[in-house]
Amino acid sequence: MSAQNLTCPAPIQADPYPTRLHQQPEHPWHARRENTVKGRHLPGPLTEQQLNLFEENGFLFEPGFLPPEEVASLTEAMSELLNREDYRGKPFTITEPDSHEIRSVFAVHFLHRAFQHLARDPRLTQRVEQILGGGHYVHQSRINYKPGFKGKGFNWHSDFETWHAEDGMPAMHAVSASIILTDNHSFNGPLMLIPGSHKHFIPCVGPTPDEHHKQSLKTQQIGVPSEQALAAMINRHGIDAPTGPAGSLLLFDCNTLHGSNANMSPDPRSNVFFVFNRRDNACVQPYAARQRRPRFLGHEPDRLWQADDS
Amino acid sequence: MSAQNLTCPAPIQADPYPTRLHQQPEHPWHARRENTVKGRHLPGPLTEQQLNLFEENGFLFEPGFLPPEEVASLTEAMSELLNREDYRGKPFTITEPDSHEIRSVFAVHFLHRAFQHLARDPRLTQRVEQILGGGHYVHQSRINYKPGFKGKGFNWHSDFETWHAEDGMPAMHAVSASIILTDNHSFNGPLMLIPGSHKHFIPCVGPTPDEHHKQSLKTQQIGVPSEQALAAMINRHGIDAPTGPAGSLLLFDCNTLHGSNANMSPDPRSNVFFVFNRRDNACVQPYAARQRRPRFLGHEPDRLWQADDS
Repeated sequence: MSAQNLTCPAPIQADPYPTRLHQQPEHPWHARRENTVKGRHLPGPLTEQQLNLFEENGFLFEPGFLPPEEVASLTEAMSELLNREDYRGKPFTITEPDSHEIRSVFAVHFLHRAFQHLARDPRLTQRVEQILGGGHYVHQSRINYKPGFKGKGFNWHSDFETWHAEDGMPAMHAVSASIILTDNHSFNGPLMLIPGSHKHFIPCVGPTPDEHHKQSLKTQQIGVPSEQALAAMINRHGIDAPTGPAGSLLLFDCNTLHGSNANMSPDPRSNVFFVFNRRDNACVQPYAARQRRPRFLGHEPDRLWQADDS
Repeated sequence: MSAQNLTCPAPIQADPYPTRLHQQPEHPWHARRENTVKGRHLPGPLTEQQLNLFEENGFLFEPGFLPPEEVASLTEAMSELLNREDYRGKPFTITEPDSHEIRSVFAVHFLHRAFQHLARDPRLTQRVEQILGGGHYVHQSRINYKPGFKGKGFNWHSDFETWHAEDGMPAMHAVSASIILTDNHSFNGPLMLIPGSHKHFIPCVGPTPDEHHKQSLKTQQIGVPSEQALAAMINRHGIDAPTGPAGSLLLFDCNTLHGSNANMSPDPRSNVFFVFNRRDNACVQPYAARQRRPRFLGHEPDRLWQADDS
């Protein structure tokens, strides 16, 4: 037993991805443990080449995934949710800082049949299982609507870092699917990703405040990599910002660093977003927070959720 | 005399570009009165095609205008100014909100010989006079330095609107020259412009607060067009964001709408910026503010400025 172990005993369950540290770690990142693509043996629409791209870059963009008529009906479903008076002020809805207009709604696959169907659509779930390599459930879902000029950007981050620290997601067996419901171009704040960043875990510094999600869903300050780590990552891998027509699908690994810039255009930006987690990777106790986040941010397999639950 | 004139007497000197209004005007914009290119008869390096582009778009981008060795010496001059301890806290230097590091210095053509030379460089001044059609002086100069990840964006605006309202610039006979000292790419917040917007004057709503520049140099809220006017302008003309290597020159008309997004990359962004105004267009009393802005923001022809003047 080393001297270090004597002064700082190891936790009972060793955490493969320690984060929210008290100080900068000696190494800015360490290698990811899990494979990225685990279901090559399963049938599905993704070709070997597409799976290779996902494995290499940590994301895959498919322009025109949904036809315009399906986009139109999802947009209508989104409007219905955004206009629900009884959802205003509920924890699972996020309003703009300077108005009472709803901009995001969580748990939409429980709130509206259109999104429930979409979450179960084989075109989506077959792709998901080709990546995850096993049965899945929806860890999180939401819709975002940002009118023109209004959308602020958000800082670079890995979703897995937060889900591990604050939701208790054990390992990197989750994938996000974002379907844009508006045309995305260079100037309405498209999602930016760092290709290849998913292969590295960057521990973040700073303890998690209680009820952190109330702040982090607006502007995230805790759980973001250091500028040194980000700079090294971008200098190595660059930045990509896929753009395309409404109905395009972006699949991205839970650990791919992403961020976005403000919407400088008059065009609104909206999307529907699902996080699919592998069933054997269901969340346990949070790894770096005193309390697990509310269920509307992190669902459990086979457990229903209702608007009154929050 | 109409009833309106009886209740609201016209100012003695009619203002062709009224702005900072009490309410939204009936028409979101009106046509520009001055020609954009007025020196086609003068000798200079800009071709007829380049002058046509400037006239049509309200800007002209020339990648690689300065060779790398000249960029290096300007970068060194910039560092010298940013590191001047005695400039810290002076009105003509702007520090970041959350640190004491200098990010912008004004009046640099009076503060450093390298920028004095550049402001008089025939490669620049001949271009300027081809556009302005007459003798010029430097209305404003500055350097900007933004480290990676730190640079915030700024809202869409016309410089002329502010110079007219707050500096007393009578007409649209000024052109800005921005030389980037770092490579500009899509992700480090390059300047965005609305091509063709210079042909329209958009009056802005809201009276000018006293000492407005202290706020507006950080975040501009007054003197920005309405979202309706901006949306119509962008839907008509689109957005352009020229990118290129360090040393590239952007010439843009005083009334071209421009803005920028945040710097999402680790790469710093810096530039040196001169506003050339035609000598017969020297500033008078501000058109929509109680006091003219300090001289470091708006110089006069043939009048020297020193760091102690502010």
